[in-house]
Amino acid sequence: MAVVEYDGTHFSGFQLQPNSNTRTVQGELEAALTHITGQRIRVAGAGRTDAGAHAKGQVISFRADARFDTPVLQRALNGVLPDDVCILTVGEVPEEFHARYSARARWYRYTLANRKVAPALRRCYLHHIRRPLDIEAMQCGCRYLVGPHDFKAFGSGTTTVRLMNRAKCERSSELVSIDLVANAFLKGMVRNIVGTLIRVGVGSLSPDDVEVILSKGDRTLAGPSVPAKGLCLMAVYYREADANDYV
Amino acid sequence: MAVVEYDGTHFSGFQLQPNSNTRTVQGELEAALTHITGQRIRVAGAGRTDAGAHAKGQVISFRADARFDTPVLQRALNGVLPDDVCILTVGEVPEEFHARYSARARWYRYTLANRKVAPALRRCYLHHIRRPLDIEAMQCGCRYLVGPHDFKAFGSGTTTVRLMNRAKCERSSELVSIDLVANAFLKGMVRNIVGTLIRVGVGSLSPDDVEVILSKGDRTLAGPSVPAKGLCLMAVYYREADANDYV
Repeated sequence: MAVVEYDGTHFSGFQLQPNSNTRTVQGELEAALTHITGQRIRVAGAGRTDAGAHAKGQVISFRADARFDTPVLQRALNGVLPDDVCILTVGEVPEEFHARYSARARWYRYTLANRKVAPALRRCYLHHIRRPLDIEAMQCGCRYLVGPHDFKAFGSGTTTVRLMNRAKCERSSELVSIDLVANAFLKGMVRNIVGTLIRVGVGSLSPDDVEVILSKGDRTLAGPSVPAKGLCLMAVYYREADANDYV
Repeated sequence: MAVVEYDGTHFSGFQLQPNSNTRTVQGELEAALTHITGQRIRVAGAGRTDAGAHAKGQVISFRADARFDTPVLQRALNGVLPDDVCILTVGEVPEEFHARYSARARWYRYTLANRKVAPALRRCYLHHIRRPLDIEAMQCGCRYLVGPHDFKAFGSGTTTVRLMNRAKCERSSELVSIDLVANAFLKGMVRNIVGTLIRVGVGSLSPDDVEVILSKGDRTLAGPSVPAKGLCLMAVYYREADANDYV
């Protein structure tokens, strides 16, 4: 396994898109692994981040020849990977470990620039909201998300019940971060939740509306999805305790 | 006057380069002002940042027709400027105000990513230092910089005495920031000082060597210059008191 950081700006998402010329993180990782090992290696990622979304702590699993010492493999991979992807750690794991199926929880952070003028600096990592956000109201809305819920109002999937461990909204000067930790996320879930919380922040929805939207399971009541560029997969947890210890 | 934020990644520095096709911040600002006002407007900037260096608080002065209300001018400029430059505020100032000559002090911040692996995220805003930095030693070295000194060991200029109001080195997890506030800076001064402080941080120079280099005024003793991408002009001060109140 390896922990991977990437800047999603110039990627069409994490997941390989076969029979297509698009650049994906999985594609770069598999190419680097093949280049180093001489073997065709398939990579599994814990979270399928969208085009433009970033990761500080994506986790991948793959099967490589045991003759590769992990620090050597890490340095070799970082030597051939493009500068918008890097390997933070490489570790040996039991054969049954799978980055996606073994994961107990994922931590996603969405970051907003809340000020009058759209930011020039860090603009690929921030979504701009001009109107002042009421963080306390957003935090009140967040509380309704915690626990096991049917999240079908916020995303799609064959099953839609997920366990939200944490949901937190914080301001640090002009930056507002929304942290969500759940056992798994539906497609589009973080971006739809954030869009809804922004509506709470500007006052067009009340915090209690989050509970109503959640319980009605009606996507038409939720706010619009926000752009992927504000989204970052911060960490993936493989033990239940880690997901709950997250501050 | 206006306060300007920009991402220097795709600029050949702030200053206009006549008879050249290079993209400069001043060039973009003057083009936007001309587009909005219909007049040929010359812009003066407080700090001539290098190619790749950024600004959160560059200050510019220019003379525009009084019929332009400042909030209207700001919105109009932000509407036509490219997405790597934005105008944070526009204000009316006395005729004798000059962004560069009226400035009492400038605050520059240099940011290092101090960890094993070169960062993928925010890589255009950070300089990577692999070896662990001793921040206390760097901070000790910083103390010798404060006060009026001849900084010729760290940069070039017709006069080389400058007043350093503050010099501070701090760590926040993997990020190390070096903040320097001075009445003015010599060409290359921040980047040469940071290069020298990094040598102190990795132990190849002692904190006391900063004093020796400063007093000898010998550039060959100072560390190598660091890349511009880690550099950001944070603020420009027009009153003596503001420069000293900076925390």
